[in-house]
Amino acid sequence: MKYITDIEGVYASGIHCGIKKTGAKDLAYISVPEATGSAGVFTKNQFCAACVTHTKKHVASLKAMIINSGNANAGTGENGAKNVKKTAKEVAQVLGIKLQEVGVASTGIIGVQLPMDKIESGIKTLLQNPKEKKGLDAAEAILTTDTFTKCVSHSQKIGKKTITVAGIAKGSGMIEPNMATMLAYIVTDADMRSDLLQRSLKVACDASFNMISVDTDTSTSDMVVAFASGAYAFNKNNAEELAAFQTLLTQTCIDLAKLVIQDGEGATKIIECQVTGAATITDAKKIAKSIINSPLIKTAIHGEDPNWGRIIMAIGKTPGIKLNPNKVSIRIGDHLIFEKGEPLIAPKMAELKTHLAQKEVVLAVDLGLNKAHATAWGCDLSKRYIDINTDYN
Amino acid sequence: MKYITDIEGVYASGIHCGIKKTGAKDLAYISVPEATGSAGVFTKNQFCAACVTHTKKHVASLKAMIINSGNANAGTGENGAKNVKKTAKEVAQVLGIKLQEVGVASTGIIGVQLPMDKIESGIKTLLQNPKEKKGLDAAEAILTTDTFTKCVSHSQKIGKKTITVAGIAKGSGMIEPNMATMLAYIVTDADMRSDLLQRSLKVACDASFNMISVDTDTSTSDMVVAFASGAYAFNKNNAEELAAFQTLLTQTCIDLAKLVIQDGEGATKIIECQVTGAATITDAKKIAKSIINSPLIKTAIHGEDPNWGRIIMAIGKTPGIKLNPNKVSIRIGDHLIFEKGEPLIAPKMAELKTHLAQKEVVLAVDLGLNKAHATAWGCDLSKRYIDINTDYN
Repeated sequence: MKYITDIEGVYASGIHCGIKKTGAKDLAYISVPEATGSAGVFTKNQFCAACVTHTKKHVASLKAMIINSGNANAGTGENGAKNVKKTAKEVAQVLGIKLQEVGVASTGIIGVQLPMDKIESGIKTLLQNPKEKKGLDAAEAILTTDTFTKCVSHSQKIGKKTITVAGIAKGSGMIEPNMATMLAYIVTDADMRSDLLQRSLKVACDASFNMISVDTDTSTSDMVVAFASGAYAFNKNNAEELAAFQTLLTQTCIDLAKLVIQDGEGATKIIECQVTGAATITDAKKIAKSIINSPLIKTAIHGEDPNWGRIIMAIGKTPGIKLNPNKVSIRIGDHLIFEKGEPLIAPKMAELKTHLAQKEVVLAVDLGLNKAHATAWGCDLSKRYIDINTDYN
Repeated sequence: MKYITDIEGVYASGIHCGIKKTGAKDLAYISVPEATGSAGVFTKNQFCAACVTHTKKHVASLKAMIINSGNANAGTGENGAKNVKKTAKEVAQVLGIKLQEVGVASTGIIGVQLPMDKIESGIKTLLQNPKEKKGLDAAEAILTTDTFTKCVSHSQKIGKKTITVAGIAKGSGMIEPNMATMLAYIVTDADMRSDLLQRSLKVACDASFNMISVDTDTSTSDMVVAFASGAYAFNKNNAEELAAFQTLLTQTCIDLAKLVIQDGEGATKIIECQVTGAATITDAKKIAKSIINSPLIKTAIHGEDPNWGRIIMAIGKTPGIKLNPNKVSIRIGDHLIFEKGEPLIAPKMAELKTHLAQKEVVLAVDLGLNKAHATAWGCDLSKRYIDINTDYN
């Protein structure tokens, strides 16, 4: 298993319809005609795109998604909302389903009207065969500044059946999903009703997409949508089997989220921040996010500089958290550098530097207060980020 | 009037005592032996340096400050706290005042113990003449990554006397003061009691230092301390005269805060964000801060790219604010580009580019809801920021 279309009952493809000047793929569909359930989580950005409003409204009854890249159709006023409806209607007609069964997503530049002529003729070409098995093409067609396609799949025997969860994602900049996420589409062959799938997806997103940040900027178009094709059933009343499914879904989401970070604009390293010993999970999450979002930590990691003073700064600046500076310990990789409020004299610098030279750097903070913990993922800040974003148009 | 020592009853100087490897000045004192009042606001970073704890405790009874740069004495545990006391005691002895009358400040690298031998012999040299009038030397000795000294002074006739407020500041990186500020020292020849001065200083800081950000990182050592030398009295019971003093103090703080932004690490432009029409002042402040802190807006401004879609993103992502996207209008300089939720077709690009090419860029957001407003100042994000911070040690 590799692509979303390797799942029974899931169809997808992607083409170039003319939005991207580069000629790259920019229009995709995912169709699950016999879906037993669908679920989604969406951006909390109040300036959310019209497609987010539409898809959110119909999230529990979806059978298909149409996704364009290169234009976010956000900040486009009433005309933008009309274009979402037009797009959904067109797709519903071709697939022979209802308007309320079509989710719409757009990603790319904000504030420019969609080129509807290109979208409409594109839909006709794309859906000529509504049962394509081109999962990689769909994964390609949803990208913007991404430098690689993001496909993840996990399988696990649950009860008597092997259940699979697979997903695709896009995202590289404007990434700090706020209780939601950037674009990701998850499919499973499990038989799941919408309400149960929604609950599982929320849990999975809270531990994955909601714990990453490239640049603290929350997009107007973030969404994760999940479909259950229903091919295989397991016993949802058995706590163990349900937990096994949750693990499968969460792991798929974490892997996709980490791929987004790995492809963060200008990123050369992933920063994993593990916070333990916190008073509450909320505190642990806030501190982990404060650390991976600090520009001074991001640049220090980029320079492979063990400047841990910046870590205590980022802990201390986090608003509203319970903290006793005298109980805080900090590790970089396996190396304890600060113990219960006191700096350790001369930690082994050579070994520290070796850890910081790796592609994945681990910063571990123990607050010494209680048992709550959380992990967040971010990336370093390089000159390439400036290059990419000083001239995006 | 130019320097803090141009104020009657205010003495200051700065020397190199050996902390900075470059040989630059790194130890300063400010002394106001006949101070009628003193006041201060301090970092909310919970990992605050021991000197912050000391100075905060004695803030209403200060007659002098001793300030070193190059070492923040933060994250230094119990030994760090002992060194603050030792420093204050030494200065108190030489000046013939009480320990509780000496404020201590340190700024520079976090997590390294102070070289007390250098500080102690430095204090002896520095205070050989405790009535120096070398305000510029003091302004120089408090700098770290700053590229210029920051001195501001304003005078105004209040009642029958001309009152002056003058100040110095340092700050360039790790700048997002949280209801406090980076290092700044303000003096006035007005006759002000500590309680009244404290109230005025809080108001001034809320409109100045608390409305700037270079990189969202809140230092462990932030403080603003103000002294009133008491040379000239005005009628504090006259609301008009008191308001005139407040304006003088606030303007001095705004000017100093803007100098910090102008000297922001790697900055080539100041971004001024004016938010009007907000439901509450808190909302206006949050949105203005969200805009000046967005890495995507900072890079767009650096590239002189009128990418206003990022402005609506930054408005919409602000947590907990009242917003109606259909009432929002946005200007860049004098150019209306987004009106009541709709993008304007073809704003004059050439004129927009001319505004963006200036050293000071104005982004104005009208939320169209109510009358609350706020202004924040930030800077662009350049490759030089990365250079400065990848290798600080």
